[in-house]
Amino acid sequence: MRSTLEPDGFAGSFAAGLGGLARAPLPAPLAHEAKRALANVLGLAIGAAHHPGVDAIVATARALGGPPAAPILGRGERADAHFAALAAGFAAHVDDFDDTHLATVIHPGAACMAVLVALAEETMPSGAFALTAFALGCEAQLRVGVAISPEHYDRGWHITGTCGVAGAAVTAALLLGFDDAALARAVRLALTMPLGHRDAFGTMAKAFHPGKAAANGILAARLAAQGADAPAGVIEHPRGFAAALSTRFDPAQMLDALGERWELAANTYKPYPCGIVAHPSIDAALALRERVQPDAIAELRAHCHPLVPELMGNPDPQDGLEARFSAIHGIAAALCDGRVGLPQYEPERVRRADVRAFRAKTTLVPTADIAREAARLEARLHDGTNVEEQVAHARGSTARPLTDAELFAKVRLLVEPAFGERAGHRLVDAVLAIDEAESLDAVIASAVPEASAHV
Amino acid sequence: MRSTLEPDGFAGSFAAGLGGLARAPLPAPLAHEAKRALANVLGLAIGAAHHPGVDAIVATARALGGPPAAPILGRGERADAHFAALAAGFAAHVDDFDDTHLATVIHPGAACMAVLVALAEETMPSGAFALTAFALGCEAQLRVGVAISPEHYDRGWHITGTCGVAGAAVTAALLLGFDDAALARAVRLALTMPLGHRDAFGTMAKAFHPGKAAANGILAARLAAQGADAPAGVIEHPRGFAAALSTRFDPAQMLDALGERWELAANTYKPYPCGIVAHPSIDAALALRERVQPDAIAELRAHCHPLVPELMGNPDPQDGLEARFSAIHGIAAALCDGRVGLPQYEPERVRRADVRAFRAKTTLVPTADIAREAARLEARLHDGTNVEEQVAHARGSTARPLTDAELFAKVRLLVEPAFGERAGHRLVDAVLAIDEAESLDAVIASAVPEASAHV
Repeated sequence: MRSTLEPDGFAGSFAAGLGGLARAPLPAPLAHEAKRALANVLGLAIGAAHHPGVDAIVATARALGGPPAAPILGRGERADAHFAALAAGFAAHVDDFDDTHLATVIHPGAACMAVLVALAEETMPSGAFALTAFALGCEAQLRVGVAISPEHYDRGWHITGTCGVAGAAVTAALLLGFDDAALARAVRLALTMPLGHRDAFGTMAKAFHPGKAAANGILAARLAAQGADAPAGVIEHPRGFAAALSTRFDPAQMLDALGERWELAANTYKPYPCGIVAHPSIDAALALRERVQPDAIAELRAHCHPLVPELMGNPDPQDGLEARFSAIHGIAAALCDGRVGLPQYEPERVRRADVRAFRAKTTLVPTADIAREAARLEARLHDGTNVEEQVAHARGSTARPLTDAELFAKVRLLVEPAFGERAGHRLVDAVLAIDEAESLDAVIASAVPEASAHV
Repeated sequence: MRSTLEPDGFAGSFAAGLGGLARAPLPAPLAHEAKRALANVLGLAIGAAHHPGVDAIVATARALGGPPAAPILGRGERADAHFAALAAGFAAHVDDFDDTHLATVIHPGAACMAVLVALAEETMPSGAFALTAFALGCEAQLRVGVAISPEHYDRGWHITGTCGVAGAAVTAALLLGFDDAALARAVRLALTMPLGHRDAFGTMAKAFHPGKAAANGILAARLAAQGADAPAGVIEHPRGFAAALSTRFDPAQMLDALGERWELAANTYKPYPCGIVAHPSIDAALALRERVQPDAIAELRAHCHPLVPELMGNPDPQDGLEARFSAIHGIAAALCDGRVGLPQYEPERVRRADVRAFRAKTTLVPTADIAREAARLEARLHDGTNVEEQVAHARGSTARPLTDAELFAKVRLLVEPAFGERAGHRLVDAVLAIDEAESLDAVIASAVPEASAHV
């Protein structure tokens, strides 16, 4: 698949830049941000390990897959690299609780973590190099994403799937020890197989996107190792990736100041397991509950950015997946329960009478002059008084990031139901010590049941 | 990946229609057309079995793939279903010599044949049912394609890759014995992973598209067997397949008169191994050579549809792949050699002085009022006279289809260099007798080296 028409292209420059970064240590703040992202997606994949979608992938791997080269996170089974990546990327994203780069709405961690897990045993990277491969894979996704945003997402693409393939290929290529030329081939081939439409939002198919992105990224790297290639101009060609998937392509956003400007530094973490645009309203609802008994409220109006009803307008969800795309459910759950975690998205909780009744009282009011990370709740009480609650910057936004303590507590809460309290601490500790570790063994061991940790 | 938001959708109706057709015998003319398409892509895959791209796929299968469940056509090796499909779909398309549905420019045979080869041993279909699964997979691709054409292709998508995934999933789901509900899940999942941009034209990455379409189709079917699903409205959702990949979606083109109107009946076969828009000019050049010695020509102007220079405007290709996208090379080869077959696209032939000199004399003249299947050559001779040659309908067009004799002669010529003359006849005979055969064994046996035919 060698290109003969174009002598050179942006993908080659991009790969050369990333390859250069891979040969130096990660700047310390970036390494820490990468650890935060990695711990978060590992915790999520463990928490969702027994989701029916993961069951389907594991059963398919049994029917179709190759030798068991990698673990399925959170479970005793193993699968080939392809299916292990598919499962890990799926599980890390299916709760809509993973990391988010707000400018692009990319969730970069899932696909790159999935590649690490799939290739760790074969490629045996040092912990520090694994972290670099993960960080640069995330950065690659984000750089491609900013260059085609926001038109790409507006056109119907789930940017986490489309850009995820390129990032996954970078992580895979680095783990496999490629030189810059092979890395460029892997990136180019990856850009021929992006996937993911936004119709999948609110269904399990959404989580399939980063999983398949990871699997496609590995395939791209493997084919690149054999000399296969896609056209040099795969991104910028008039019939290439950018033109087919967006109406905008700004190469400077992709290429400029690599190693100086880090998009990964702007990665954020969700405090609530639902679509991020609803978070400011949920923050406001939690604050409101400190002042007002939920029973006292007759009617609630949530003034919010217009994207909130567009992306999360479902007023009466019937299950956990639908609820994740219902801002009104998040607000109602915050007021009823005083917290918004995974239990608030269990199907029984979504359908219970109290929260349904509260949803019926709540309206979204799209308001053009409210910023995406802000919200204003207006409650009319049964006694006739009005109460307001305003949030300027949502928890977990770039202006108000989750602290390490908040984030690692979230990770532990995801791991504990599966493996117990000690295991939650062990996973966080293993990720924090990754850059001192000789291998990924400790991280992987803390992400599978103890009996299957040594194979 | 179950949808909960939409109760029903076009993909479900589509699958129900296709499932109904699968339970009846194929109409005889359709069965014959399917055999023509199948023989053609099998011959091509055998002819291209040792292409470097196939080598890369086979080597990757060895590193990454599962148990050897299926043959690599034309070779002794075997691979798992995924990689066997990737290899067969790639090889059948890499010479740009496969079947073409002119209204959409889809090449439907490669991906569906690849699924047959990948799943034949596991699913053991009768010959007649295998032919049905192949024909309905092709029809499914074409039906999706016409519903989003021509805007989809115009937007930069290689429609053979994008629609190929849906068709491959249909062939796979039928071979696996799915009911209509599972078939619908397979189609929906397939539509979440289309691929292929037109920047790949003129490079090996183009052939990767139908190969990966076949592999993705099999994955979609396998996941569907486990109950996985994508949204009901995956095609028509405002952020779904059609909106992300086209600006047009006409569901009637996809759904109406299934079993009455057959798009597959309009499938065509190339007499020349290059982009189809150049064929009328090549026909005219071959006719011109009957009347004029090529040395006598001082200057040649090819009046042709504007798509010809747009898609095949390269005036001086340097290798076989580039030459396949050079109408001027096809014309020059026709005049120099009196025939345009695979040898005319060997790199040495592309670079030889006589054909280079002839290319330099030749100009494409895009002419809006010339139909796509027509062309007019205008030769100025060294003696000052002008000679014209006009073609109204290219050989291989719907108005002037290749006869069975022409098509099967082409197939035999593809197989013979690899396996000898008897083998070419054996393959054609096996495909023509497929609907009487208890299995695909005879077809597969005639498509691999004799020593590896029995495993």
